[in-house]
Amino acid sequence: MSKDYTPLYQELGMDIEKHNELLAALGEIYPEFYLKQENRPKAMEYFDYVMSEIHGKRIEELMEKKKEGKPLVGTFCIFVPEEIIVGADGACYGLCGGAEFSIADAERDLPRNICPLIKSAYGFKVQRTCPYTQASDFIYGETSCEAKKKTWEILNEIHPTHVMHIPQMKREKEKELWKSEIYDFKKHIESIIGRELTFEELKKGIEIINKKREAMQRLDKLRGMYPDVVPISGKDGLLINQISFYDDPERFTQKVNELCDELEERIKNKVSVVPKDTPRIMVIGTPMAPPNWKLHHIVETTGGVIINEEACIGHRYYKDNIDTQWAENVDDLMERMLERYMKIDCACFTPNEGRIDKIIKMYKEREADGIIYYSLSFCHTYNVESKKVIDRLQAENIPILRIESDYSMEDMGQIKTRVEAFLESISFKKNVKFKGF
Amino acid sequence: MSKDYTPLYQELGMDIEKHNELLAALGEIYPEFYLKQENRPKAMEYFDYVMSEIHGKRIEELMEKKKEGKPLVGTFCIFVPEEIIVGADGACYGLCGGAEFSIADAERDLPRNICPLIKSAYGFKVQRTCPYTQASDFIYGETSCEAKKKTWEILNEIHPTHVMHIPQMKREKEKELWKSEIYDFKKHIESIIGRELTFEELKKGIEIINKKREAMQRLDKLRGMYPDVVPISGKDGLLINQISFYDDPERFTQKVNELCDELEERIKNKVSVVPKDTPRIMVIGTPMAPPNWKLHHIVETTGGVIINEEACIGHRYYKDNIDTQWAENVDDLMERMLERYMKIDCACFTPNEGRIDKIIKMYKEREADGIIYYSLSFCHTYNVESKKVIDRLQAENIPILRIESDYSMEDMGQIKTRVEAFLESISFKKNVKFKGF
Repeated sequence: MSKDYTPLYQELGMDIEKHNELLAALGEIYPEFYLKQENRPKAMEYFDYVMSEIHGKRIEELMEKKKEGKPLVGTFCIFVPEEIIVGADGACYGLCGGAEFSIADAERDLPRNICPLIKSAYGFKVQRTCPYTQASDFIYGETSCEAKKKTWEILNEIHPTHVMHIPQMKREKEKELWKSEIYDFKKHIESIIGRELTFEELKKGIEIINKKREAMQRLDKLRGMYPDVVPISGKDGLLINQISFYDDPERFTQKVNELCDELEERIKNKVSVVPKDTPRIMVIGTPMAPPNWKLHHIVETTGGVIINEEACIGHRYYKDNIDTQWAENVDDLMERMLERYMKIDCACFTPNEGRIDKIIKMYKEREADGIIYYSLSFCHTYNVESKKVIDRLQAENIPILRIESDYSMEDMGQIKTRVEAFLESISFKKNVKFKGF
Repeated sequence: MSKDYTPLYQELGMDIEKHNELLAALGEIYPEFYLKQENRPKAMEYFDYVMSEIHGKRIEELMEKKKEGKPLVGTFCIFVPEEIIVGADGACYGLCGGAEFSIADAERDLPRNICPLIKSAYGFKVQRTCPYTQASDFIYGETSCEAKKKTWEILNEIHPTHVMHIPQMKREKEKELWKSEIYDFKKHIESIIGRELTFEELKKGIEIINKKREAMQRLDKLRGMYPDVVPISGKDGLLINQISFYDDPERFTQKVNELCDELEERIKNKVSVVPKDTPRIMVIGTPMAPPNWKLHHIVETTGGVIINEEACIGHRYYKDNIDTQWAENVDDLMERMLERYMKIDCACFTPNEGRIDKIIKMYKEREADGIIYYSLSFCHTYNVESKKVIDRLQAENIPILRIESDYSMEDMGQIKTRVEAFLESISFKKNVKFKGF
């Protein structure tokens, strides 16, 4: 980091010693997982810088907003309509939740056999080691998964936590419920800024996030839609998807577009980060919060490359925009927002057939070579849904590997062995030599 | 069983050989767990008989109903309004789901790390060894837990499965959603009988189930509200709670009341099934479907006695009646039904504080000596909620033991050791000698 942020951490009531331990631990992984990669796009420098300042400069920026009375909202789910927060000139960001570092502290209060994301995030609050959590006026939880839903009740005892009710189906009556929830959310944000959002403000919030999503859609296409060239590693792609939940949205959009310009040049010049015939893998399933880079690191140090994350930190987050074209008033914008959010194909919905059709379409469009179905341990919705997804993929003759894992490094060897066998079988099928590393 | 039901099983498309294996396995447990108990009330003979014919005579009765065009509905949750089915002269029953016997077959399709109840029930359908599942026109699933919610999608491929949307909160807007769901359910049942239910029919359905619940409330009080006398074992109490989901409701009501008459005599004469000072334990948490008698068996062969199950198979099922007194039409009845169902304090709701208040009230009223918080493995909602419950119980100085288990017998020794220590500590606290067995 560029300077000593101790006074800032003190202001945030953080456990500074413990936080130093965390930074030291992360400081070892990043160079190993990221900086050792060869032939990275130059524009990745910005994202490396963001990561180096993710507990520093960005927190300073957020605290400036806070001092101006702008809302800071921490979330764990792409269902929370950030457009409203951004419209109020506030900031919406993901909370720390991708590290094993905080899990033991969470397990004093939470069962061990729930998803590591929830335990990690809760543990960060218990430890007071996440500046995002500490800085947030409140956390906006939701009911997309039951372990989260019940954890909010416990978290609320140590940090103000509000809960949005995400319905479990998508019929007209559930849309009404969800509509009422996003109106309530808007009211809550307005209560913080002390007035109603104007049409222009809300529209601006939507447009900022639309542009961000467009940049991410552009990156997604450059990563996967050119079968001859993979201009950026999956690890770097994942990193950008992760940073999208922390960085200032307008700056982030600009930087992603600059990266995309460079990637377009690479595609034109056939500059690939991997050799020809490297198996091109789509990862589908649950989100990978930073620093959860384990699977990508394994795949990309075992002779494969990841071209897409069909996950909430990934494609599910940026795939749909909000159409503001014909909107004439706030209610019109809210209606379009409702439509957009109802397209999220989270496994929390029943049924959720659209997700499977989409995965197959994505796979074919990208001429991918195989799919890894990744779930965080104990994620019931994605775990059970994998049966239907995998049945359909197998019927399409798509190579598929199922991996369930948590944040520990203990299963890396075992996963590597399975990934290696999977990549080899893909190469065999394609009748090319498996290169490995 | 009183006769050979092979033709019936053939009619139901069952795997007869596999089903014989199941019956043989269950046939060993019941005498060991139930018939060896001493000093059982005479009226338990009826319930022993029901258990012996649970895959026999009762199925015959159901098939007679079916032949008359009456709906047979299998369920897994006390949210499905059976009053409507009974009003249509149909039958609503629980599906087999308490045995390890079918789990390996389920685990081919479902993750291993979900609740054994769901795996067991799904496995019974895959095996075609549950006559209740086979007989049912359809299964009514719901969204009270996400592993179930997603499993219905898979189950629907092999058996007609409908899903009711249980909301996750209890505000006015969620009540509207739930109201619409029970109206839709009524319409579905009416589509089977080919006409609308009359006011009298619906009222009759409600009254039949009200009487059943009143009998069970009466039994609940006799089990726990007389600190000097425990007139019936917890195992027998649990058995009756389990049978309540299978037996004909009117006959069951009569037989429970006959048992209660006998228990009242026992209380008058101080006839207890356990010695004085035996620790009186409340069990709270997730349901125990037959033949899941493990915890009760351990506690009651280790020197304790169970006086209550705060679970869906138990108190949560029968605690609230539907007030039909002022109802003048079908809509009035539906409104009262809505109110009753919204009182169910399932851990799927957030928040669910009422459950904790209720548990403490029940404990004090019964002058119980300790509580076992029982969860089926991987039940996120009850597992996470246990933190708040246990915090409150500890603040009240109530002895509490937390047990999470599945249907295997492998952890019996370990649970017995923990139960023994728990009961001893209670006896020590009460300053009485721990008797054990």
